[in-house]
Amino acid sequence: MLDICLLGTGGMMPLPKRFLTSLYVKYQGHAVLIDCGEGTQTAIRCAEVSMKDIDVICITHFHADHVAGLPGLLLTIGNSGRTEPVLVAGPEGLEEVLCSLCIIAPELPFDVYVQTEDTPILLGDLSIKSFPTEHRIPCRGYVFELPRAGKFSVESAESLGIPKNLWSKLQHGETVTFDGRTVTPGQVLGPPRKGLKVLYATDTRPVPAISKYGQKADLMILEGIYPEEEKLGKAIERGHMLYREAAEMALQSQAKELWLTHFSPAIPNPQEQIDVAKSIFPQVTAGKDGMKKTLYFSE
Amino acid sequence: MLDICLLGTGGMMPLPKRFLTSLYVKYQGHAVLIDCGEGTQTAIRCAEVSMKDIDVICITHFHADHVAGLPGLLLTIGNSGRTEPVLVAGPEGLEEVLCSLCIIAPELPFDVYVQTEDTPILLGDLSIKSFPTEHRIPCRGYVFELPRAGKFSVESAESLGIPKNLWSKLQHGETVTFDGRTVTPGQVLGPPRKGLKVLYATDTRPVPAISKYGQKADLMILEGIYPEEEKLGKAIERGHMLYREAAEMALQSQAKELWLTHFSPAIPNPQEQIDVAKSIFPQVTAGKDGMKKTLYFSE
Repeated sequence: MLDICLLGTGGMMPLPKRFLTSLYVKYQGHAVLIDCGEGTQTAIRCAEVSMKDIDVICITHFHADHVAGLPGLLLTIGNSGRTEPVLVAGPEGLEEVLCSLCIIAPELPFDVYVQTEDTPILLGDLSIKSFPTEHRIPCRGYVFELPRAGKFSVESAESLGIPKNLWSKLQHGETVTFDGRTVTPGQVLGPPRKGLKVLYATDTRPVPAISKYGQKADLMILEGIYPEEEKLGKAIERGHMLYREAAEMALQSQAKELWLTHFSPAIPNPQEQIDVAKSIFPQVTAGKDGMKKTLYFSE
Repeated sequence: MLDICLLGTGGMMPLPKRFLTSLYVKYQGHAVLIDCGEGTQTAIRCAEVSMKDIDVICITHFHADHVAGLPGLLLTIGNSGRTEPVLVAGPEGLEEVLCSLCIIAPELPFDVYVQTEDTPILLGDLSIKSFPTEHRIPCRGYVFELPRAGKFSVESAESLGIPKNLWSKLQHGETVTFDGRTVTPGQVLGPPRKGLKVLYATDTRPVPAISKYGQKADLMILEGIYPEEEKLGKAIERGHMLYREAAEMALQSQAKELWLTHFSPAIPNPQEQIDVAKSIFPQVTAGKDGMKKTLYFSE
């Protein structure tokens, strides 16, 4: 299972009742944060999720509303007693931005590793891949994938005479050896089953990569900067995505559910005009700060 | 008159119900901000004071809880339509810290000037002086002084035959010339009267400079990191000031009023133990986020 928490839903600047957009994903005690604008550490406290468990911070791009909270968050993670390293991943140039911002966080009780290559990040079985999106500066979306092995066949295991204490290893994908014989997981597992997929993309035009990486996602979290169609020109010019465009991305992806986020500060009630997205993709919700969902493998 | 707003009262890290300590002072349409930690721009919105009118930002020192909000605030001031320059003042090294933090605010629609010399900053009649305090790194306190001219003597003005349309100039300290004669303010004004004084010092031990610069202050805003006397060792070690020590500073300064601020995140209710300060200096209040006061010249 994957625990998802949308910490904030604002774009551009933090507001008294709206934190800046960021996502917190937890899997088996390890947490991943996407983006860290000014106030994200407070959003984490408000959402009552653990700061100390953040192993990975993924940055979409280097606009202030997505990174300005980094030094403060790292310091507070340090104050929480963490000593294990934290990996910060993001576009090319990340090291310079991070070092510059951390002039006010010169001493941390843990190491910070930086990754700019777009190789997948692995947290146990969970993989986090990035893909390029289209904004005014280089920007990335992220997709979380939790694969699910095929069904374990007790019948096959028994017919192969595998001792019961080795079944769990095979279920977790390990090859086992006993009595001088070797059995691979493929011999006792059915075809891989549908796992879990969550895609996150803000500050982007609706590019094909989103629906490509989002195919059959359980949850897509996409920017909906404005609901109004007449702001399309502004959205194009500034590299953002309307409610309607996000809904079209979710539809093309055959996603199960869509949460909109990264609302313009000019939109006081993002839910009010949700129908423009709902008419295209009914399983859409206007995100709210602190909104949580636990995703389970389907039966 | 001076409008004072204590935007936040927290130390170390922002909390869901406590912004980081900073002060907003407004005089004749010009605003001065002291310190700008993560979330100060949100505190400004919550307090409903003007972001666009901030002409001067004074920094006490370069710990993250006092400066991390600078790039976000400057960007938001820019979004508010300001084009007039902003002066940022603070200890030696300010330019490096500001440039580093502003890697994520590369384009602002106004100039930012930097001042590290401890010469007074003047906003009309209002002067802002800095003085050195004692923290783990170089740190400054600030004192606002609004002088008040002597009483205008109608009798003297009439006996000198000064035309009435020139009285206002003399009242504002200008020398006037008429009918080939020159009259100086000193000829029509009594001795200078008591003006207004506000002193601000956080993240410091209770050093003599505080009571020296704070003599007869109308309002002192001082750190009270902990109420408990048993935390004195920790306060000394980390360069902070207890409730009791702040109260003693206010007493030695013969101040009119004291607001405590910069409370440790470990103190959930700062007002609860205010008596340890009240027994020394009765006119003390535990500051609250958004607390406002307008100071007027006394009659």
